[in-house]
Amino acid sequence: MQESILIDGQAAEAAWIRDRGFQFGDGLFETIAFRDGGPCLWEGHVDRLLDGCTRLGLVAPPVELLHAECMQLCAGLDRAVLKLYITAGDSERGYRRPDTVACRRILQRSNWPYLIDRPSWRVRICRQRVGENPALAGIKHLNRLEQVLARAECDDAATDEGVMLGQDGRVVSGTMSNLFAQFGGVLVTPRIDGAGIAGVVRRLIIELGRQHGWEVREDRVDPDKLRSADALFMTNSLVGIARVVSLDDTELDQTVPVHPAIDAARALSHVPGAAS
Amino acid sequence: MQESILIDGQAAEAAWIRDRGFQFGDGLFETIAFRDGGPCLWEGHVDRLLDGCTRLGLVAPPVELLHAECMQLCAGLDRAVLKLYITAGDSERGYRRPDTVACRRILQRSNWPYLIDRPSWRVRICRQRVGENPALAGIKHLNRLEQVLARAECDDAATDEGVMLGQDGRVVSGTMSNLFAQFGGVLVTPRIDGAGIAGVVRRLIIELGRQHGWEVREDRVDPDKLRSADALFMTNSLVGIARVVSLDDTELDQTVPVHPAIDAARALSHVPGAAS
Repeated sequence: MQESILIDGQAAEAAWIRDRGFQFGDGLFETIAFRDGGPCLWEGHVDRLLDGCTRLGLVAPPVELLHAECMQLCAGLDRAVLKLYITAGDSERGYRRPDTVACRRILQRSNWPYLIDRPSWRVRICRQRVGENPALAGIKHLNRLEQVLARAECDDAATDEGVMLGQDGRVVSGTMSNLFAQFGGVLVTPRIDGAGIAGVVRRLIIELGRQHGWEVREDRVDPDKLRSADALFMTNSLVGIARVVSLDDTELDQTVPVHPAIDAARALSHVPGAAS
Repeated sequence: MQESILIDGQAAEAAWIRDRGFQFGDGLFETIAFRDGGPCLWEGHVDRLLDGCTRLGLVAPPVELLHAECMQLCAGLDRAVLKLYITAGDSERGYRRPDTVACRRILQRSNWPYLIDRPSWRVRICRQRVGENPALAGIKHLNRLEQVLARAECDDAATDEGVMLGQDGRVVSGTMSNLFAQFGGVLVTPRIDGAGIAGVVRRLIIELGRQHGWEVREDRVDPDKLRSADALFMTNSLVGIARVVSLDDTELDQTVPVHPAIDAARALSHVPGAAS
C-alpha cells in the first residue's frame, strides 16, 4: 500500500499510527501497583482484563506470560507502577478489524507517584458527565476522553479528584477512582451496569463485605446524598483507599470510625498477590 | 523519569505510547477525500476540526498549514485518502493533561478505496448501540470503540454498513456514515445532539436544502420507520452518498426518484474545495 505520513510537518515512518489503540481506542489497559516484589491485586486485574478481552472480542495473552513480564520489568524495585495495554494490533484505516487480529501487548513501568500511603482527598463534583453504554460498562477500555475532560476540571491545587455523574445525574465514580459512601454501618458504591469501571479495590471491598457479613451495597447513588454520608472514600489500584476530606465546599467529619470493609481492604490492597 | 517498556515481550523505546491519543483517545481526526488536485469539502472538515479542538480544549494548528501539508502529501495524485489527527500530545500516565499541552498533528495518506463512485449499500441494524453524551456529540474524537464493535457485526460479505441506535433505541447514524431517509419530498436525518458525528456530507445536504428551500429535517428517527422510507441514503466523505438497497431483510425500491438535495450534494461532494 502506498502511504505517507507527516508528523508535525516532518515525514515520518511512524508505523505505530496503525495501532488500533491509537486509531480508535480499540483496546484495554490496567494500571497495577507493584510493591514488595510483586504486582498487587493481580487476580483482580487479570480477571478484568480477560473480561474486557472477551467483551471486545480480543484474544488475551497467557496470564503467566503477563506475570513474568511484570516481574521482569520491575526486577529489584521496591515500588513501581505498571501500565499494561492490550490493543487490537495494527490495521489499515477504517473501523473494521482485519480478518486476523494480532493483539499487541505493551507493558510500561513508571515511578511510584505517592509520597504517603493513606492520602486524604479534596473532591469536587464535575460538570463533565459519563455517557452510558452497558456494552462497555465495567471494562477498562481505551476510550477515556470523558475522564480526561472531567480531570481537567480538577486542575487547581485545591482539588485531588473529581466525581463524575452519569447522563441520569446519578453518581458513577471518580475520574480515576471508584467511590464508597458510608451511612451508619452500610457502605454504598454506585452500580456500574451502565457506566464506570469495575475497580479492583472496589471489588476487594465488596468481596470482603460478602465474606465477613459486612453490609456493602451496590446501588444508585444520588449526588445530594453524598454530603450527608458519614464518610466518603475513593479507591484505585495505586492510591488504595483515599478518605475524602471535602466535597465541593462541604467539609466531611474525619472522626467517624471507618467501615470494617474499608479497614480490611486497606490492609490488603497493597499486598502483592500471587499469579492466579 | 525512570521508565521501561516491553512490547510483545521485547524491550522498546516506543516514545509514541506517551501520545495521549493512544493512552486515552485524547484527540480528533478527519478523513478527507483528495480528488482532482485538492481536498474535498475542506471547509466542512476544517470547521468540524476547529469545533472539536475548542470543545476538547486543544489549540488547533493554522488552517493554511494543514492545507499546505495536505497538498504536499498528495502532490501529483489523482485520488487519495487523507487522515488527519490532532492529539493532545505527550504526557505521563494519568488522565490529567500537562500544564502546557503541545498538540501533535499527524497526516496520513492512503490509497483511494472505492472502485465505483455511486455505490449501493446493503445495510443492517446493529445490536451494538451508541452511548449518549451531549458534551462529545458531533465531534470526530478518537473514542470510537462503539463504532468498531458495531462494524464487527457487519463482517459478512453481504453487508456494507450497519445502522447504530442510541441508548433510547432511536437511530443515530451508520458505523462510518450518516443516514438520510426520504419520505415523499422530505429528507430526514437523525439529530446528533446526544450522539453521532456532524458529517461533512450530511452538512452539505442540510445546507443545500436550506439554500434551495428543499425540505431537509433533523429529527428523532425511529428504526421501524426506516423500512417505510421511499429511499435511504448513507453519507460520508469518501463514499459521498450511497443509496441503500436493503435494510436487514427488506429490499428497498430503487426506482423512486431521489430528493433534489441528494442529487445536488452528489454533484458537489467530490469536488475539491478551496482552503477557507
